[in-house]
Amino acid sequence: MRVFLSGFGTVGQGLMETVVIKKDLIRSLTGEELVFAGAVDSKTYYIDPKEVCCFCALGTKASEGTVGHAKRDGKSVIDIMEQCEFDVLVEAGPTNIEDGGEGLANIRWALEHGKDVVTVNKGPLALEFGALRKLAEDNGCILRFEGSVGGAMPIINLCRESLAGLRIKSIQGIFNGTCNYVLSRMDSGLPFEQALKEAQQLGYAEADPTYDIEGYDTASKVVILANSVFGRDVTFKDVNLCGISSVTPEAVAMAEEEGMVIRLIGEVSGTKLEVSPRLVPRNHPLAIPGTLNMALIDTDMAGPITVSGRGAGRKETAAAILSDLIAIARQRKKE
Amino acid sequence: MRVFLSGFGTVGQGLMETVVIKKDLIRSLTGEELVFAGAVDSKTYYIDPKEVCCFCALGTKASEGTVGHAKRDGKSVIDIMEQCEFDVLVEAGPTNIEDGGEGLANIRWALEHGKDVVTVNKGPLALEFGALRKLAEDNGCILRFEGSVGGAMPIINLCRESLAGLRIKSIQGIFNGTCNYVLSRMDSGLPFEQALKEAQQLGYAEADPTYDIEGYDTASKVVILANSVFGRDVTFKDVNLCGISSVTPEAVAMAEEEGMVIRLIGEVSGTKLEVSPRLVPRNHPLAIPGTLNMALIDTDMAGPITVSGRGAGRKETAAAILSDLIAIARQRKKE
Repeated sequence: MRVFLSGFGTVGQGLMETVVIKKDLIRSLTGEELVFAGAVDSKTYYIDPKEVCCFCALGTKASEGTVGHAKRDGKSVIDIMEQCEFDVLVEAGPTNIEDGGEGLANIRWALEHGKDVVTVNKGPLALEFGALRKLAEDNGCILRFEGSVGGAMPIINLCRESLAGLRIKSIQGIFNGTCNYVLSRMDSGLPFEQALKEAQQLGYAEADPTYDIEGYDTASKVVILANSVFGRDVTFKDVNLCGISSVTPEAVAMAEEEGMVIRLIGEVSGTKLEVSPRLVPRNHPLAIPGTLNMALIDTDMAGPITVSGRGAGRKETAAAILSDLIAIARQRKKE
Repeated sequence: MRVFLSGFGTVGQGLMETVVIKKDLIRSLTGEELVFAGAVDSKTYYIDPKEVCCFCALGTKASEGTVGHAKRDGKSVIDIMEQCEFDVLVEAGPTNIEDGGEGLANIRWALEHGKDVVTVNKGPLALEFGALRKLAEDNGCILRFEGSVGGAMPIINLCRESLAGLRIKSIQGIFNGTCNYVLSRMDSGLPFEQALKEAQQLGYAEADPTYDIEGYDTASKVVILANSVFGRDVTFKDVNLCGISSVTPEAVAMAEEEGMVIRLIGEVSGTKLEVSPRLVPRNHPLAIPGTLNMALIDTDMAGPITVSGRGAGRKETAAAILSDLIAIARQRKKE
């Protein structure tokens, strides 16, 4: 299986490290080798008709900050994919929730050219899921995206495969570790700004935290769940959205008096699509503190099923991508 | 897809009801009809070259206590399967942890004759997993058993499929709702006998509760996890086993003073295989009260992942079987 890797930030590097470390496991699970046919970052690329040397790519990144020595010089990722023989595109480039950006174009091109796709880039999924699903079907391609929601917390493939016999009535969850960290620090009486600063110092929040704090990240995730698990056709604009920057210490204190905490909850069902701070009873599964993600899946026949796991991180997201790659290899092998 | 149903107790009836109710969902997910070719209980059987009428079978069960009108008269389930054209055996007969009983013979026969198998009968899996797995491989058959551990809580297919890229280091869990109900009532100061009696009155515990209370049920489940998730080759006898009948109110009170509760924990890893009452910190995920099952899956790259769900019940176990049947239909369709 030949993989083309678009994006060589934290997640892209994590995937390459993982593939090196898990070479034997991958072979034993799929019966074949997983190699990189090419990799591209914002400035350079590295393609090889045999295979990319992962140590070289990771080494060049460490010493020079780029994946390879060939300059892109205005070449798009598609221009580079066109020069490369591969089976699966892993799209791990920057998320763009305005228009999907280059990631959307890459995924489209790959599906149109018969390549399977694994993406953790949320923009294309939140904006054009219906069109991409159809493109995959029409071209006999597989499109998987477990790592786009909940990092290492199993949710999408779980709902679509392991729980296939159940009708999922709703999913409520904590899908952003940054917001949850900030809110759980506010439980202890810290004001918002101070809790956020602490999250930034610990590396849980970006220098510009808007995307997380205002709920855009969580909103992308509920859109992906709505489209993939509930078969809806919605985009980012359809989400009832409120972030956490207006949560005050007074509100937290009032919640506490009632035995509640405030959490940023994403909720999706056949009709609902909402992200907002909500009161949650202190002993409820969704009152979980810290940076974990947690989802409560309500089902017709089995009542509530909960899952939790680390929602982000280099290794965690890489593991989700790898599970999708293994699933594709197994499925292709059976055909 | 033609299904032969061995066992028409709570779970077997629940499956038939579910298939009736979810006819459309099953067709939309698999592109085919799921029909019963035959069903057998301890005294009677009902086979039909076209398809079993589910309403008739459920009606006969309600009015006469049997699945059909044809008496078994010494015929084994195998004798009946031999007269029947079908694709998949669902083994939902009584669990026998001594020698696997008729369920083991049924599964063997089915795999030897090229039938796929879904089993919730734990005996055969706890005693002969290695041999059954090999038989399935040698005959190109699929063997699935999600409902045998944790009821509707996703665990086996989750670990083997959704988490395929991760190395699972250990699984610790609560796999028996009866024990957990009794222990969580003991948290409130009830003595063991009284908590057990309450569980029996509520229908959570059998009249003879030995199988649950002494940990045999949990032990079967850790054996199934050891063999299927960890690739070990162990049986029931290899489990370090201690049940909950010796947990005293004094022990519970001492635990409480330390901020702990007592729970019956099954633990399995590459080397460990243990079922015993353990002290668990009160805010730990495994301190969950009530009848839910809960598992904490520790992984190499993604740290801890938790899942919880209803561990037993007519509809819940039926849903797990149905998910396995849908997975088989999808896989067979792709081939």
